[in-house]
Order: sequence, then structure tokens, then C-alpha cells
Amino acid sequence: MNAESPIGLFDSGVGGLTVFREVSRILPRERLIYLADTARVPYGNRSKETIIRYTLETIPFWEEQNIKLLIVACHTASSHALTLLQENLSIPVIGVIQSGVQKILATTTRGPIGIFATKSTIESGVYQTAISAERPDIQLFSVECPLFVPLVEEGFLNHPATTLIAEHYLQHLQDQHLETALLACTHYPLIRLVIQSVLGSSVALIESAEPTAIAAKTYLEKNNLLNTSFPSNPEFYVTDAPEKFVKLAKYFLSQEVFSLKKIRIQEMIAPCLKNAFS
Amino acid sequence: MNAESPIGLFDSGVGGLTVFREVSRILPRERLIYLADTARVPYGNRSKETIIRYTLETIPFWEEQNIKLLIVACHTASSHALTLLQENLSIPVIGVIQSGVQKILATTTRGPIGIFATKSTIESGVYQTAISAERPDIQLFSVECPLFVPLVEEGFLNHPATTLIAEHYLQHLQDQHLETALLACTHYPLIRLVIQSVLGSSVALIESAEPTAIAAKTYLEKNNLLNTSFPSNPEFYVTDAPEKFVKLAKYFLSQEVFSLKKIRIQEMIAPCLKNAFS
Repeated sequence: MNAESPIGLFDSGVGGLTVFREVSRILPRERLIYLADTARVPYGNRSKETIIRYTLETIPFWEEQNIKLLIVACHTASSHALTLLQENLSIPVIGVIQSGVQKILATTTRGPIGIFATKSTIESGVYQTAISAERPDIQLFSVECPLFVPLVEEGFLNHPATTLIAEHYLQHLQDQHLETALLACTHYPLIRLVIQSVLGSSVALIESAEPTAIAAKTYLEKNNLLNTSFPSNPEFYVTDAPEKFVKLAKYFLSQEVFSLKKIRIQEMIAPCLKNAFS
Repeated sequence: MNAESPIGLFDSGVGGLTVFREVSRILPRERLIYLADTARVPYGNRSKETIIRYTLETIPFWEEQNIKLLIVACHTASSHALTLLQENLSIPVIGVIQSGVQKILATTTRGPIGIFATKSTIESGVYQTAISAERPDIQLFSVECPLFVPLVEEGFLNHPATTLIAEHYLQHLQDQHLETALLACTHYPLIRLVIQSVLGSSVALIESAEPTAIAAKTYLEKNNLLNTSFPSNPEFYVTDAPEKFVKLAKYFLSQEVFSLKKIRIQEMIAPCLKNAFS
């Protein structure tokens, strides 16, 4: 690999395009390859074991793409499988957890902090552990919001039903006087206004996409891997239903999806992976 | 196989338990084996090709169980993969489509008929084709209701947000004066009251679970395969997250889930199947 090699972005579906967008903006000369595992989306309600397996099964695809860096845009996959990906892939890998944690800690003076994420991300405890390690004095409220992903996937971005469901999940936090809250799922920024309206304007909502893109830039700079050539079009890969991806992508991106291919991710047998399925 | 062999029931998730319940009621002496592909649920938004692959990959499991009949409780899998299952499995297979079609035709005098289902079931056109073949004079309104499945899976059965979403999908039918409507997804009976309130009380809502159970009974009677021995407990199998299945099952069943195992469905290579992936 060299500076002209592409950067890979992985998500279970279209949600990771919120990260793709920021990476495109902050690193406009990089060639981006985006993979969405749409045959097995959503990851957010699945078990740790299955999320690890699905994520690690993308390894042969990434090895083949000759990428210089992989960004795991999916919070659920980052929560459960980041270390295992790093151990099993010959390419540097960054997730979205650390950047989000650093950003919210930099923004929070005394808390409390809200963490809004999928069931599986909350259950992993990664945010709770990382934030408490730095600031054990700050109170945390972790909330699973499982319906936000299908609502976004179906384009119910400003629908009154989305507000009612956001109230169902978050209204009890109104009395907790949150200082900040992390939108710890790639889909949630698309209903940011709804979430803000339920929590009130005093709560600062933090997203991971921009700090993750900045972390990617920092890594490339440090390792002399910044691409200085003329920018090329991104490539998109899905494991199912490409038409639906194109249709949904317009909610996430201002650009058209030109290059899109459907691929098959092959099942991987456990013993060929280090430390997985222990 | 013989009369004491079990009956298999297949669904992508917990929705098929609405069919399981009716089969238990109408055939109380039968031993039932229920398989939910929870590692890849939901099927309803996926492509035809992927639904076929996932459904056919359960064949080795069913061959091993020595069942005397397989009921495909999932409307999406029945729509796309029933014939292929019948061609590739050495066991008789019935789906939920034909029973639902017969029931709604028997209940409808002049229409119009509403068909409410997942995106993939509607796109398959099986209901439209089957009903038009019998009664080309009856007007049909087919409506995709993709958010109903996650709403039911998350237990939002009587929530005001579910009503708002049902209004979003179905309110335009109020002017069409439907005579009947088919709840053509295993999850929808759980929000039957919400759907009825949106459509108005004059619309007769039809479910496939009971007529499918009756069709199973008729098949067993005709083939001298009715079990007359003492009833035994059902067995449940899932491909992921057994705890979540047990928790959700209580919305669908009045009995506890006692015997539950997590299994792995192995990926199947296309060439060993007849007529698939053509």
C-alpha cells in the first residue's frame, strides 16, 4: 500500500454514509471504498458473537482492496469487533468509539452525559468504560434506541411518529439536566433535530463522524500516507439490494452513488481467526 | 417419517409464532419444531435472491429433524422460496400464501381487497397474481408496511406512534371502502386493533395463521399422518440471540419457551440446489 491506496469504510448499512460524508469533506483527495453488509443489516440487535463473525468475514474483501486504512463507521461493529479486526487484518483499523469519546469529554465540563445507541452497543459497555476511565465523576445515562435505525432507513426523518418514539426513549432524561449527549449510532444524526427537540436546546449533541474523519487525517499525516493526487470517484459495495441503497443514500449524501457493486461475503470458519469466538 | 414425526415451522424471527400458536391449538397432539433465523432477520426488506438463499440454507437442518411436514410461516419466504423448497426438500412443504388467499376469497363478495405485507412480499406479486386468477373483477390495494415488523419486535403494540405509522401507510384506503384486508405478514396480527382503528370497523381483517393450521391438519388427515400419541413439548431453535427470542415470544404465545437452542445455519453453495439462483 502507499499514499495513493484507497481508504475503506465499513458499515452494516447506509448509516455509515454519515461518516463517509465527513471523510470526503476533510480528506477530499482520498479514494474511498465503502462496504455495506446490507444482506445482514441491522447489526444493532444481534449478539456480540454474531456481530464479531459478520465483521471479521469482511476481512478477505478488505485484503483484496489494497486499502491503506480501514474505518469501521458502524458503532455496533466498532464496539464489539475493533480489536479483533486489528489483530486479524494486515491493515491499520480505526473505529468511531475513541473519537466520539474524546469529543464528548472535550465538550463536557461536569455532565451528566447521555449515550444514545443500539442495544448491542449499549450492552458492550465500551462507552461507559471509556468515559468513566477518564472522568469517573461524570454521571452517565446510556439509552438504547432500537427503533431509530428502521425509522431512518424508512425515511421517517421528520415524521410525528419519530418524535413520539424519541419521547418514549428520551423524555425521562429531561429531569436529568444533561450537559451533552453522544449520538452513538451512525443513523442518529439524521434525526438530530427530533432528538434535540425532545431533550431541549440546552443539551449539546455530539456526533462521531467529524472527529473520526479528523483522526483518519491525523493518522495519514503522521505516516506520510496523505493522497496528493487528483481525487477519484468513490466505490460502493453492498451485499444485497443495491437499488434500495441508492435510494436511501440520497438522505445521507449530497452526491450521487455512481459506482455500486453487489458482492457476496463468504462465511468464515472460526479457527482461521486469531482470538475470535473465545 | 411417520405419524409420530414432528412438524417443522420456519420463520425469519418471532413473527411465525402467530402461526405456531394456531397449529398448536388445532393440532394439539403434534410435536412442533420451530426455527427462527434471528441472525439474519428481517427478511422483508431483502432481495428475492437473498431470501431464496437464506430459506434454502435451512434444508440440512430440516432433513436432520426427520419432520413429516414443513410449514413456512413467513410470508416473505413463502412468497419467494416455497416452490424451490418443495423442489429441494424430500419433505412436503406448505406455505401461508395459498391458505390466506382462499380465506380472503371466501370472505369477500365484491371487494375491494387490501393486502398489507412487507416490501419484498408485495414486490413478489404472489398475492396479486393468485387473487386476480380467481377473481379478476375484484380491485386490489397492495400496501408495503415495512415499519410494522420492527414496531412489533420492540413491543410497541399499543403505542400512539404505531397508530401514526399505521395512518401513514393505510389512511389513504379509507376512501376506497375496502370490504376485506389480509394481514399478510406474521407480525401484523399483533397490531390488528391498531390497523382496524385506522381502516374503520367495516373492513374485515383476515389472518393466514388459522387457515394454514387447518391446511396442515387436512394434509395430515389425508395422508394418515395425524399424531395420536400423547402430546410432547415443542422445541425452538434460533440462529442468534436466544434471550431476545424468549422475551419477545411472550407477546406471541401464552406458554413459556422451555426448550430453546442456538444453532448455526451453514452457507450453501448454489450448484447443489435445483433451479435456484437462475
